[in-house]
Amino acid sequence: MSELSIFEKISQRLLPGLIIDENDTHIAFLTIGPLAKGHTLVVPKSNISDYLFSLEDKAYTELLLFAKQVAKKLESKVDCQKVAMMVIGEEVPHVHIHLVPFQTGFGFENLKVQSPSMDELKQIHNQIIN
Amino acid sequence: MSELSIFEKISQRLLPGLIIDENDTHIAFLTIGPLAKGHTLVVPKSNISDYLFSLEDKAYTELLLFAKQVAKKLESKVDCQKVAMMVIGEEVPHVHIHLVPFQTGFGFENLKVQSPSMDELKQIHNQIIN
Repeated sequence: MSELSIFEKISQRLLPGLIIDENDTHIAFLTIGPLAKGHTLVVPKSNISDYLFSLEDKAYTELLLFAKQVAKKLESKVDCQKVAMMVIGEEVPHVHIHLVPFQTGFGFENLKVQSPSMDELKQIHNQIIN
Repeated sequence: MSELSIFEKISQRLLPGLIIDENDTHIAFLTIGPLAKGHTLVVPKSNISDYLFSLEDKAYTELLLFAKQVAKKLESKVDCQKVAMMVIGEEVPHVHIHLVPFQTGFGFENLKVQSPSMDELKQIHNQIIN
């Protein structure tokens, strides 16, 4: 049996995660390296692929519809203009969608990964889930 | 009648565009400000919204499935590791998905908008559509 990915470990509660939302097959949680407050990762619970465009149409559509639901939650709970969606990463070989609530001025050339404290992450997590 | 968006003008051939693919309701064309060779914008032909997550589920799903089809074409025609997807922009108020073929090392903090010549854009366009 292959090793579980870090996202599978979060999905199965083998690692702690600041979970925003989930259904039977998908889960969303705050990243510890956010571009902005409320930056959330949306993933399939099982590591069915390391690449969005390799997913079958059904799994692809279901993942993206779940991401839309999470984005609506973020919009309503985080002070932001809109929520950006990005699938860019090579860092974890388990398909993941970045949802980033952003303010005016957010663009390709001024993205900066932040290092919030765990207290700061828990504060924004509480704000989103309550 | 409200003014047409720049993407509607490209869709209706009122402005030139280096078109990669289209169907009845969607179109994909090269951006003139790419992050990498083959960087393509995928949009609904009509300006139905300025925001991805405001789309109804059907329009949202159809747009994203068309984007997947375009991504597969880019993968097969452009030298790249994968194709990134980003919906981030405020620059044009007409919903658009960025598809960016990327090589290793592409990440949030090293995105740089390029200014290729029209000849360079036409060369990569030819490579993709033929």
